[in-house]
Amino acid sequence: MFLELDGQGPQYRQLIRALRAAILSGRLLAHARLPSTRELALELGCSRITVLTAYEQLRADGYIDGQVGSGSYVNALPIETMPLPQVNTTTIAAQSRFAERARQYQGLPIAELHRGTRFNLQYGSSHINPSLSAIWARELSWAAIQSPLGYGADQGLLALREQICSYLSLRRGIQTSVDRVLIVSGTQQAIALTARVLLNEGDTVAIEEPHYWGAWQQFSAHGARLLPIRSDNEGLLCNELPTVAPRLVLVTPAHQFPTGSVLSLTRRIELLSYADRASCWIVEDDYDSELRYDSQPLATLHSLDTRDRVIYVGTLSKVMFGALRLGYMVLPQALRADFVSAKCLDDRGCPTIEQAALAHFMEDGGFERHLRFVTRELRSRRGELIESLHRHAGERVQIGGTHAGMHVVVWLPDYDHAQIDALIALAHERGLGLHSVAPHYDECPVVPGLILGYCGLSKAQLRDATQLFGECLDTIDAIARRHDTKQAVKYASS
Amino acid sequence: MFLELDGQGPQYRQLIRALRAAILSGRLLAHARLPSTRELALELGCSRITVLTAYEQLRADGYIDGQVGSGSYVNALPIETMPLPQVNTTTIAAQSRFAERARQYQGLPIAELHRGTRFNLQYGSSHINPSLSAIWARELSWAAIQSPLGYGADQGLLALREQICSYLSLRRGIQTSVDRVLIVSGTQQAIALTARVLLNEGDTVAIEEPHYWGAWQQFSAHGARLLPIRSDNEGLLCNELPTVAPRLVLVTPAHQFPTGSVLSLTRRIELLSYADRASCWIVEDDYDSELRYDSQPLATLHSLDTRDRVIYVGTLSKVMFGALRLGYMVLPQALRADFVSAKCLDDRGCPTIEQAALAHFMEDGGFERHLRFVTRELRSRRGELIESLHRHAGERVQIGGTHAGMHVVVWLPDYDHAQIDALIALAHERGLGLHSVAPHYDECPVVPGLILGYCGLSKAQLRDATQLFGECLDTIDAIARRHDTKQAVKYASS
Repeated sequence: MFLELDGQGPQYRQLIRALRAAILSGRLLAHARLPSTRELALELGCSRITVLTAYEQLRADGYIDGQVGSGSYVNALPIETMPLPQVNTTTIAAQSRFAERARQYQGLPIAELHRGTRFNLQYGSSHINPSLSAIWARELSWAAIQSPLGYGADQGLLALREQICSYLSLRRGIQTSVDRVLIVSGTQQAIALTARVLLNEGDTVAIEEPHYWGAWQQFSAHGARLLPIRSDNEGLLCNELPTVAPRLVLVTPAHQFPTGSVLSLTRRIELLSYADRASCWIVEDDYDSELRYDSQPLATLHSLDTRDRVIYVGTLSKVMFGALRLGYMVLPQALRADFVSAKCLDDRGCPTIEQAALAHFMEDGGFERHLRFVTRELRSRRGELIESLHRHAGERVQIGGTHAGMHVVVWLPDYDHAQIDALIALAHERGLGLHSVAPHYDECPVVPGLILGYCGLSKAQLRDATQLFGECLDTIDAIARRHDTKQAVKYASS
Repeated sequence: MFLELDGQGPQYRQLIRALRAAILSGRLLAHARLPSTRELALELGCSRITVLTAYEQLRADGYIDGQVGSGSYVNALPIETMPLPQVNTTTIAAQSRFAERARQYQGLPIAELHRGTRFNLQYGSSHINPSLSAIWARELSWAAIQSPLGYGADQGLLALREQICSYLSLRRGIQTSVDRVLIVSGTQQAIALTARVLLNEGDTVAIEEPHYWGAWQQFSAHGARLLPIRSDNEGLLCNELPTVAPRLVLVTPAHQFPTGSVLSLTRRIELLSYADRASCWIVEDDYDSELRYDSQPLATLHSLDTRDRVIYVGTLSKVMFGALRLGYMVLPQALRADFVSAKCLDDRGCPTIEQAALAHFMEDGGFERHLRFVTRELRSRRGELIESLHRHAGERVQIGGTHAGMHVVVWLPDYDHAQIDALIALAHERGLGLHSVAPHYDECPVVPGLILGYCGLSKAQLRDATQLFGECLDTIDAIARRHDTKQAVKYASS
C-alpha cells in the first residue's frame, strides 16, 4: 500500500494522517481491508505499536472497523470528499514591490532538497545530543510553571539577556549590558530587523561572496542593492570594499559562510577602520563560533570595535536546534531603541517560556555541558568525515577550512559544473543527499564545490555516506572516461 | 532596604538579581549586614523560602557570606563596578524611513502603564485558568520529546494547521485547507506580513476608528497612509469608505476593538461587495471571538466571502496566553505563496515544539475544555464588573458592548478629558490602573472613555477595584463641585 508519510511529528500521527487522507480522498474505498499491523509495520519499517496505535485511533474516530487479529476494514462513510490542497495556480501580479522581489526566491527551498534520502549531508540540521530532547522537555516544563503567562518584554526576558551577557563575556570577549541585548527568533529575524532599521529601498549592502543565502534573500526582498565582495582564505577582501560607502557590511568573521575561512586580525582592523571612515555599520554574524575544534577563536569584531559600529548577531539554531527559533543581537547604543521598536512592531517579542527555559539551562550549567558534548561529538564526526573522504575520494576533492562549525566545503577542481550536477542527481538516486555551494554565490564559482553538513549523521553513517560518495564519483569518472574514449575515437576516425 | 524587583520570572530569581545589582553597583557595601530572611520576607511580602533560596544562591556565588541564624554579610569583592544600563541619549538620525516613522511610537508603552498597581484593569493580560501553567508544562514536555528538532516548515507544523482547520470549521464556519493556513507569532506579525506583501510606502489602508494601536503603528511605520473610518454600534460605517480604493481594509467584525460593537450582517455584505468592486483586500482580525457570552457569533466575513478577498487572522494570545506568541492566518489562494515567502524571509517559521504542543492540546480536547472554563469564568467576572460598576459609578458611566471578549469600554459623558486624566492619575496613586480609550483613536473621541480589562483580576478583586473606581470618581466630582462653587462665588461677586 502506498502511503506517503509527511515526516512531521510522531510517526503514529503521520500514519493516521496518511490513512485518513487515503480514506477521505477515496483512494481507500469502503470495505477495503487494511494490511495487518504486522505487514504494514514491516512495509513502513516502523514498530508494530505505531501501526496499532494508529489503527486504534482511526477505529475510535469511526474511519475503520474490525478487531485486532481478524483484520481492519474501511467503514462506509457519507464522505464529502475532503478538499484536496489546491495547487498554486496564481497568476495575480505581486501586490507590493517586496512581494515582487521575494517571488524570485520562491521554489528555491534549499532546506528541503534531498529530504528523506538515507544519508542527507545537509547543512544545518542538528540532532547531535541524543539526550537534548529529554533535557529540554524538563526545562520547558519547569519554565512553563515558573513563567508569567502575560505578554513579555519586547526586548526579551531579562533573565535570558543576563545569561547571554555573561556567556558572551566568557566565550566571546564581548562586554555589554542587558540593555544592549535584543532577543530575536534567530539570525533570519536579526537580518530582517536590520533591513528595516537601517535600509531604505535602493540602499547598498556589502556582503561576502559567497554568503548565507537567507541574508541575501531578505536584504534583496527588502529592496537593498547587494554588492558581493570576494573573500579568500583570510576572509573578506577589505580592499575591494567600495569607495562610495554602503549602508552596512555583513560578515561572518569567525567562520566565513560557507567556505570556512577566518577573517584575519589585520583584515578585522582594516574592516573596522573602513566602517569608521565610511560611517557604515557592520553586521557580525557569529552563527557557529561556539563549535570550534583546533584553536581558540579570534576576538570578535565587536570586542575590537571602539566606535560602536558593530551589530553582533548570535543564534541558538546551530548549537541548540533549529526548531527553537531563538537568537540574540548586541546593538550599538545609537540603534538600540530603533531595533527594539522594530521587534515590537514585528511580533511583540519572543515566546517567554522558551526564553525562561533557555535562561535556566544556561544558568544551571546545562548549556555548557551540552556545548562540551556537542563539540566533542562534532569533532569526532568531522574527523571521521575527513578521513573517510581522503580514503574514498582521494585526490579528487580539496577540503576547505575545517576548524569549526558543522559543515565542510569540498572543492572538485577536476570536474565541471555539469558533472557535479550529474553527481548530485546520481547520489540522490542512490540515497545520498549532496548540496552544491553554488546557491551561496551570486556568481557561480569557477571551481564547483559541495557543502557537506555532518551533524545530521552518526560516524558510522558518515563512513557509509562517504563510501557512497566515492562510488558515485567513480561512476562520474567512468562516464567521463567513456566520453573521452568516444571523443578520442571520433577524433581518430575523423 | 529598597529593592526593586523586575517582575520577570520566579521571585527568588528577581531577588537574586536585585541584590546582586545592589552589591555590584556599590549600593550594598562590603561587610554590610543583610536583613534577616524573616525581615526581608515581611518587607517584600513574599515567603521566607524565597528569601532563603536567594541568599543561598548568593552565598554559593560568593556575593555574601555568613550562616543562617547568625546573619548574612556582603563579601569584600574586587568589584569592577558593573556597567549600569545606559540611559538612551541617542541623537543619531533615524537610519531608515521605517525607523524614522517607528520613532514616533517609542516611549508609548501602553502595555506597561500602571504595571504593578494593586488592581490593574489592563486589557490583554490573561491569567484566567489557574491550571493552565501545569497543563501547558505537560504538553510542552510531551511535545519536546516527540518533535524533530531540526528546522520546521516555514508555513507551520502540518499537524497544527490541521487542527486549526477543524477548529475554524467547527467554531467559525470557515472551510479551508491546510494549504491556506499560515502559522504566525500572533496578530502583530500577521499585520506586519500583510504590510510587506500588500503595501508599498504611500499605499492607503482603511482602518476602523477606533482601532487596535498595534496595527495602526505597524502599518504607519511601514509607510502606509492610514485612513480612519468611523464605526458605530453596527461596526464600520461602510458608506464612509473612500471612492478611491484603498489597498486593504482592516476590520474587527466579531467584536469591534475596542468599542465592542458587532459588524451587522448588512454591513458585512456591504463591505464584501465594496472590496469586490474596489479590488481591495479585507483583513478580518478575529482576535477574541471565542470569548462570547450571550449569543452565537455571526458568520465570519471569511465564510461569506465568495471572491477570495478576505485575509482571516486569529490569535492564541487572548484565549491561551500572551507569552505564547502563536496565531494563524487563512489566506486567499492568490496570496498564499507570497505570505509564506514573507514569513520565511522574516523568521523561517514559528518554534516547532510550541506548535506541536498546541496541536496536541487541540486534538486531545484539552483546548476545548480550557475554552469552556475561560468562557465561564470570564462571563462571571464580566457580570461582577458590570453589576459593581452600576453600584459604585451609577449613572455616571455608560457601559459599551459587553457580549464578548475580555474588556468593556465605559464612557463618561459628563466629564471632560482633563477630568478623566485627573481620574486616571488619582486612581493610579490609590493603586488602581485605569486605561483611556484615547490611544486607540486617531482623533481623540468627543466623549472620554476607559477600556476596562477584566481578565487579570478575580471577582473579589474586581469588586474592590470597582469600589475604588467609584471613590475616585467621587473625589473628582467633589473637586468639580468645589470648582463650580468657586466659579459661582466668583460670578456672584463680580
